Amino acid sequence: MTEAATGEAPATAAVLIIGDEILSGRTQDVNTRYIANYLAQIGVDLREARVVPDDEVEIVAALNALRARYSYVFTTGGIGPTHDDITADAVGKAFGVEVVEDPDAIALLSERFTEQELNPARRRMARVPKGAALVRNAASKAPGFWIDNVIVMAGVPVIMQSMMDTVGPLLRSGPPIQVETIEAGAIPEGTYALKLEAIALAHEGVSIGSYPRFSSAGIRNQIVLRSRDAASLDLATRAVRAMLVELAP
Amino acid sequence: MTEAATGEAPATAAVLIIGDEILSGRTQDVNTRYIANYLAQIGVDLREARVVPDDEVEIVAALNALRARYSYVFTTGGIGPTHDDITADAVGKAFGVEVVEDPDAIALLSERFTEQELNPARRRMARVPKGAALVRNAASKAPGFWIDNVIVMAGVPVIMQSMMDTVGPLLRSGPPIQVETIEAGAIPEGTYALKLEAIALAHEGVSIGSYPRFSSAGIRNQIVLRSRDAASLDLATRAVRAMLVELAP
Repeated sequence: MTEAATGEAPATAAVLIIGDEILSGRTQDVNTRYIANYLAQIGVDLREARVVPDDEVEIVAALNALRARYSYVFTTGGIGPTHDDITADAVGKAFGVEVVEDPDAIALLSERFTEQELNPARRRMARVPKGAALVRNAASKAPGFWIDNVIVMAGVPVIMQSMMDTVGPLLRSGPPIQVETIEAGAIPEGTYALKLEAIALAHEGVSIGSYPRFSSAGIRNQIVLRSRDAASLDLATRAVRAMLVELAP
Repeated sequence: MTEAATGEAPATAAVLIIGDEILSGRTQDVNTRYIANYLAQIGVDLREARVVPDDEVEIVAALNALRARYSYVFTTGGIGPTHDDITADAVGKAFGVEVVEDPDAIALLSERFTEQELNPARRRMARVPKGAALVRNAASKAPGFWIDNVIVMAGVPVIMQSMMDTVGPLLRSGPPIQVETIEAGAIPEGTYALKLEAIALAHEGVSIGSYPRFSSAGIRNQIVLRSRDAASLDLATRAVRAMLVELAP
């Protein structure tokens, strides 16, 4: 019997994006959405995301706030060989443990770099907080790491995604969150808002959102229903569809 | 003389993205990056971004943490007519003030909706915390609002962007943050990391980052320098270019 089946509350998670390049507007973060979708599929609730600069004090404070609150914290960014890569040191400080060169990480890096290439900068990528387990990935030799409930991953999306594949099967999972997306088309939100609220109130365990988007054809709305329980989701979905049929011009 | 010219520290900011749809992975947030770029151009430092769910307790806690810390907090999302739009109430609670129907907001909505169309759901879009100023936008009639140092905007990007245009000229601005992006090409980060660190240490007031990306041609690196001071930026940029010439194969 899985933990979820015992009725234990679903695992929760936060994402911590580390990097000046996101806050400067240089880089569009796409890691949060990837992790969000990944976690939804394995039934882990992503409850919060934060972006902080490459600043040790900021990283430590955010990490300590998040790891105390959620089952898992996934960080991305700051584990490369350059001076702005300070995540390992910040995580060590957050946990109050020393950051040490990991022999297994050196072995991994040695598969890619000659002894001469494995200079002090590259050896930085083998430094992890004491007690952390390495998180390998198929895209590069430089590992992430996992310490307590914090999973430290690369910022480059293709590497981060490979690291998620490594850690995913080890997470406490639960029933996947199922989603129904219903096109409300040109029916205005203001027309169905009160009826939709009544449906939301009547269907506990189903989260219902309404999302407008602007297209060349004008505003188009989608209603999105999410639940871990297929039967509840089905009932609520039928109610929303019936409401839209009634309101259709 | 502007405030910046008096030597006052630059204004700082945080972004607070409100919405289940971001944390579920349904929607890719693009507002953070837009606001980041906008603020960089007017010399405001974006220091943090957070994403929270459509949950009043979470919104209030995040808002109170951020507004105490930064010159400005920009929120996006949760100001539409449906039951999941709870931002106005959460902001009212954060400030401990009542949320009231604003006559000017009703007047704006009346430009778009007939009296019959302006039902209780749509009137919700005219509710703002007492003392807030409306933030109009060119894309829709529904306004955002500004209370103390918190600017509340729509989640739909085109509307949010129009609201930024409304509030931008009213913000305490400073010298824009200037950026130099240098292609390091295929020169590996591990080859230049220590030299780049020395350059970063020697050029105070210039922030230097190194960013790899994976392309079909292999890894390609960019070095990005940012500063408010043109002369410092120029010196650091020359140093990085000289380093790369020296390292080029």
